[in-house]
Amino acid sequence: MRRIAVLGSTGSIGRQALEVIRARPDDLQVVALAANRNVQLLDKQINEFRPRMFSAAARPEARCGGEFLSPEEIAGHPDVDLVIVATAGQAGLSPTLAASKAGKTIALANKEVLVMAGEIIMREASLHGAQILPVDSEHSAVWQCLQGEQDGAARLFLTASGGPFYGYPQSRLSEITPEQALEHPVWKMGRKVTIDSATLMNKGLEVIEAHWLFSLPFASIGILVHPQSIVHSIVEFADGSSKAQLSWPDMRLPIQYALSYPRRWPNPELPHLDWSKIESLTFEPVDHDRFPCLRLAVGAGERGGTYPAALCAADEVAVDMFLNHGIGFTGIGEIVERTLDQHRSIDRPSLEQVLAADAWARDYAAGLAPGGCRQTERRNDLKPGNKG
Amino acid sequence: MRRIAVLGSTGSIGRQALEVIRARPDDLQVVALAANRNVQLLDKQINEFRPRMFSAAARPEARCGGEFLSPEEIAGHPDVDLVIVATAGQAGLSPTLAASKAGKTIALANKEVLVMAGEIIMREASLHGAQILPVDSEHSAVWQCLQGEQDGAARLFLTASGGPFYGYPQSRLSEITPEQALEHPVWKMGRKVTIDSATLMNKGLEVIEAHWLFSLPFASIGILVHPQSIVHSIVEFADGSSKAQLSWPDMRLPIQYALSYPRRWPNPELPHLDWSKIESLTFEPVDHDRFPCLRLAVGAGERGGTYPAALCAADEVAVDMFLNHGIGFTGIGEIVERTLDQHRSIDRPSLEQVLAADAWARDYAAGLAPGGCRQTERRNDLKPGNKG
Repeated sequence: MRRIAVLGSTGSIGRQALEVIRARPDDLQVVALAANRNVQLLDKQINEFRPRMFSAAARPEARCGGEFLSPEEIAGHPDVDLVIVATAGQAGLSPTLAASKAGKTIALANKEVLVMAGEIIMREASLHGAQILPVDSEHSAVWQCLQGEQDGAARLFLTASGGPFYGYPQSRLSEITPEQALEHPVWKMGRKVTIDSATLMNKGLEVIEAHWLFSLPFASIGILVHPQSIVHSIVEFADGSSKAQLSWPDMRLPIQYALSYPRRWPNPELPHLDWSKIESLTFEPVDHDRFPCLRLAVGAGERGGTYPAALCAADEVAVDMFLNHGIGFTGIGEIVERTLDQHRSIDRPSLEQVLAADAWARDYAAGLAPGGCRQTERRNDLKPGNKG
Repeated sequence: MRRIAVLGSTGSIGRQALEVIRARPDDLQVVALAANRNVQLLDKQINEFRPRMFSAAARPEARCGGEFLSPEEIAGHPDVDLVIVATAGQAGLSPTLAASKAGKTIALANKEVLVMAGEIIMREASLHGAQILPVDSEHSAVWQCLQGEQDGAARLFLTASGGPFYGYPQSRLSEITPEQALEHPVWKMGRKVTIDSATLMNKGLEVIEAHWLFSLPFASIGILVHPQSIVHSIVEFADGSSKAQLSWPDMRLPIQYALSYPRRWPNPELPHLDWSKIESLTFEPVDHDRFPCLRLAVGAGERGGTYPAALCAADEVAVDMFLNHGIGFTGIGEIVERTLDQHRSIDRPSLEQVLAADAWARDYAAGLAPGGCRQTERRNDLKPGNKG
């Protein structure tokens, strides 16, 4: 019986994780739940799963006698075997570090954690024998393909659906509304990830995450646009053989694999591929020009230091501005680029330095908003978004 | 240093195996070579590799002082670690059994061995701790995908290029000449296997082989026509996740994997996939009606006993007739079907019973040739082939 802590239990991944756990009562037990502001749903979850510990943005009045702790205390608690980090943005950073230092098994769905602090997390995990299991569908695919392979990967190809605007004319990208961008053609995800998918920032963050998870140089990590989203990634080995992992796009599969690993559990809820319905799997190179966020992210990863932390922070701010109709779709990349241009990176940063870079970039990016303190010249790309 | 015996060293797979071995002089040593009638090439190979043992259809006068032995003696010899069975037809059967009983590692490229005597070989291998490593590209693909998986496969999909006549109108199949059938669109192979690929008999034999290698019921082994021959097979697991192995079609890759296993060796001779050149991978269900050999083979596998042995023998005879312009292309399936119809199968046969079924079916099939003793009524499908 594995004792599970779900951090971010009210988000999209957290809810799907609880679905998977609900189906395996003999194998998995929820001992802790942590959410941020959605206290109403957390209440329901606590009533159903009766965890020994819980966490939320504010201490609630009474909750089934469970202990109220911080996410970090939960992540490192001796009663927890496996921590699902399903938080968003930088919120997962410090709990993941706590779980790493406590030698936990960590099912990591929060990609900003490794993007911002990959070097720190991987070092602490290795020092304390913590295992980091990827939950992102692309990284889970790579990890599945690497099972039983002694010599690791020579190259990776992360696949990208291309998002809702892959075939869109470049001239019209600036007109995209938040409502359009939130309609992802394949995956049902949280709002931040959905917008990051539309700008391909998400794929760039995944490249950085893959770099840390699989110890590969950036030059060995490619991207293939694969609109069917059935091949979730491809691993090439030294001998020229490649393996791919395939499934219908359903996040419950990589979530369950991280929980069942190294076994695989039958699950009637998870759809099997129907090859009579798959005629063709297509692949094409990614168009970096049209989606500058991807280029910015990979560049920040290659430069290292605190650049990736600044990237994540600026992106979080910019996506928020876009969702609030403060800037247009192409303004997201603009804000990230201008923030990175002004960032002074620190090599081999400590966690404090990572968090300082994050705070600086948030502040700087916020100032780039139309009407913000750094918005001296009104740049075309930063005009308020079309209200749709 | 692994000591290798190559049985069938002058055939297509044998020659490619020697190419792979030549490139790894620090890891692999040829200690035995065995051929049948191509004594001229065997002579050259013996001069290059200086094996301690060799075998051929007839004892040659003098050969570098190496010991002249039977293939069975070589396969079970204490100085041999790994036996590559690259013979064709039933010739590999008794050496593979000898290697199984001696607990060797067996790189098996001769699919008739498991088709004819899968139950016997797998039992003896398991009893004596012999390891059977598949060299066929499809089975190597499955085996690669199964690495590190504790719970085995739930379903397999063997891919098929479809051969040179997949899109051919059914009405014209009977006009196909041996010269046309020997032009395989993707793989460069021996003559027997090339014709078996054109009739899809080869894919049927592979289904039976997969049944034995991976302990799966026939209902769990599917076939997908995949003309690009890049995905070599697909394994589906209990949780609905699938893995595929991909590479350019080149038999040296599965050969090398069997020799390097569980490692993978870099090999500049082996081409890596170039994703800028792969636009689309297509899959379609196989057309059983147009290619009755496939249906016959799977049916023989499902019925078990000595049916698969009779199938292989009848097919070998029929392919020979076709290559000698004795019958038309569609006559191959006809002869196999009529032989199976008359076969009296024995359940759980001994090796002697398998060989007796083989001998009976060869004789019976030969009698079905135009002008043969069993050719009482001249059937349309058995008319002599178009001389092209």
